[in-house]
Amino acid sequence: MAYLDHAASTPVRPEAAQAFTDALHLAGNPSSVHRHGQAARALVEDAREYLATVLGCEPIEIIFTSGGTESINLALVGLFRASVEKDAKRNRIIVPEAEHHATLDTVLWLQEHEGAVLEWIPVDSLGRIDVTELAETLERAGSAVALMTMLWANNEVGTIQPAAEVAALAAQHKVPLHIDAVSAFGHIPINFAQLREETGAEGATGLVAMSLSGHKFGSVPGVGLLIASRHAQLEPLIHGGGQQRGLRSGTLDAPAISSMAIAALMTDKGFAEQTRRLSTLRDLTISKIQELVPEAVLSGDRVNRLDNNVNFTFPGCQSDSLLFLLDAMGVSVSTGSACQAGVAQPSHVLLAMGYDEKGASSAIRVSLGHSTTEEELEEFFAALPEAYERARRAGTTS
Amino acid sequence: MAYLDHAASTPVRPEAAQAFTDALHLAGNPSSVHRHGQAARALVEDAREYLATVLGCEPIEIIFTSGGTESINLALVGLFRASVEKDAKRNRIIVPEAEHHATLDTVLWLQEHEGAVLEWIPVDSLGRIDVTELAETLERAGSAVALMTMLWANNEVGTIQPAAEVAALAAQHKVPLHIDAVSAFGHIPINFAQLREETGAEGATGLVAMSLSGHKFGSVPGVGLLIASRHAQLEPLIHGGGQQRGLRSGTLDAPAISSMAIAALMTDKGFAEQTRRLSTLRDLTISKIQELVPEAVLSGDRVNRLDNNVNFTFPGCQSDSLLFLLDAMGVSVSTGSACQAGVAQPSHVLLAMGYDEKGASSAIRVSLGHSTTEEELEEFFAALPEAYERARRAGTTS
Repeated sequence: MAYLDHAASTPVRPEAAQAFTDALHLAGNPSSVHRHGQAARALVEDAREYLATVLGCEPIEIIFTSGGTESINLALVGLFRASVEKDAKRNRIIVPEAEHHATLDTVLWLQEHEGAVLEWIPVDSLGRIDVTELAETLERAGSAVALMTMLWANNEVGTIQPAAEVAALAAQHKVPLHIDAVSAFGHIPINFAQLREETGAEGATGLVAMSLSGHKFGSVPGVGLLIASRHAQLEPLIHGGGQQRGLRSGTLDAPAISSMAIAALMTDKGFAEQTRRLSTLRDLTISKIQELVPEAVLSGDRVNRLDNNVNFTFPGCQSDSLLFLLDAMGVSVSTGSACQAGVAQPSHVLLAMGYDEKGASSAIRVSLGHSTTEEELEEFFAALPEAYERARRAGTTS
Repeated sequence: MAYLDHAASTPVRPEAAQAFTDALHLAGNPSSVHRHGQAARALVEDAREYLATVLGCEPIEIIFTSGGTESINLALVGLFRASVEKDAKRNRIIVPEAEHHATLDTVLWLQEHEGAVLEWIPVDSLGRIDVTELAETLERAGSAVALMTMLWANNEVGTIQPAAEVAALAAQHKVPLHIDAVSAFGHIPINFAQLREETGAEGATGLVAMSLSGHKFGSVPGVGLLIASRHAQLEPLIHGGGQQRGLRSGTLDAPAISSMAIAALMTDKGFAEQTRRLSTLRDLTISKIQELVPEAVLSGDRVNRLDNNVNFTFPGCQSDSLLFLLDAMGVSVSTGSACQAGVAQPSHVLLAMGYDEKGASSAIRVSLGHSTTEEELEEFFAALPEAYERARRAGTTS
């Protein structure tokens, strides 16, 4: 059995599972003032400090959410509403074409329901954002822009965007920027305050918000966070008891938050070693696939690429067939984003990169993580040729 | 040490903690189609079926959320938006005055930002909703009402509302009704479909939605659910991968969902015995407080009352002082809703019930749960007289 779908969800780190279990003994609600509540609260505040240290932000800038999707929704809806409430004409959202569905569906919803005007930024054949087009869009629409959002690293093809360059452009044009760092954290060094400073962010503009999801780096699932600069202006999405600066009401999930903090500490501590290890395994996987299936074509940027991402198109194959055949041989990979799985349709990311429908329907993503072993990769290499042959034959006859 | 704040959060049941831990071994994302993902998905679907059986609804009617607050937000914002999108004039929300802050803050936000017109329903001195006033409001405003919402049982004073009567009125006037059952589940028998049927709900009107929170009945925290009738018309709050009928995107938290299902099964199985046990302990606590502090006055309905709720005002005391003194003696109680704790202000529930500021600032809630022992109550009884005397003296001199 080989689990090669860490980009969908990576197994919980044992220390992060332990942190969750340890915290379960604290019965209290972190909002309660008695000792039981305060013990839970202390755990949350410790976690906040650990995370702030790892991420290079202030503890108060961390807003805990139920995961990456909620974090992205809070950033996009929150920044958009705060903008149009201040100035109804500031209603444009700049969004690249190959974003995750949590972003795409949210901006489309804002367009349909709240009058957002979307400014799409194309990506090239490697999935790289068109910075020239972005600069022109900012030049043209700058003062009407509510926010810009961008995936730091594409979750399907692993292409890393020039975040500093984009953040500097946003700062220069006084536009608030949200970065979706869900697939980036643990694979790209992240320091929120430093990136803000280096790119000239001031107050509520430039880089102001960043999303992370716990289960992508070894925490228990069901928890994520939004870093929202203390200067950021955003409206809450969930209303109630007024927890977390009023930006996210609801009882704080102390055990999961504690688990996420430990997972982040472990990720940070092992960063250099892991990225070395994963890059080597990734490069091995890429060469081996090219050797086993010479017709297969690597997607995404070969150089500026996540250390754990491999994505190939297999000419003449339906990616779903390939996935099912590999699954039957005990190898778990994916066709793209898990969030869209079950729906057999071409990858919107590959389409945005200029692939035709056939090409965009023939992709397999292999993603690695902290628990990946060479043995798992060997299983995959052993299964691939037969799976490919059978998928290709199925593709030809259908 | 006595933990008597189960209404804020009840300790996780060992079986529910175990269910979480067991599920952690499944690495997959429930949206992935490979075997790892499908194992996680199977767990979620089993949990959905267990919960549907316990709650008397269809599995597909359960939408998993991050907790009670998100569930309430989804119901209120979702029903409101669906209503005004269909008919802009149908923009009224009927809401009783003594609701939880998750409701109050959400409807106030809808009023301020989305043009909702609020129709407040008063409660009497026992916290009972004024059904005559409700009927009149429905008569007058019926066709302009987007939705009505109501706490089944008040979380602070334990008063149980005549849910069937209210649901029947809502059905009669073709108004969608959301019931906040967060504090009710485990203490009041709940059967969603039966209540719909008995009260004449049809399609998208009458009782259509109900909120629950896992950590109030012994699940791990960070998980809750909304029962949304398959006929209900509501807009999603969180957009993305389209999970859960498109009504709540985001990776499903399989371990927490599994934990909540086990907690619900345990709660349901032990319901009759626990409600007998808790009612006895509650009545003992009420008599004992009256004996120890004859000036203390019970708040809420003595008869139609949650089996685990005791709430008294202590004349001449500041509830915060009393809480801190009891805490110092090892007894955890609360002044009201934990979600508002830390903010020293009179209870909005007691104010709505006609208490003056002083009275509404002198309340202590003692709430019981599955792990409550007589020994814990003895600790509380032993501590109360001294805590009361000292709080009263502090109150007189301040």
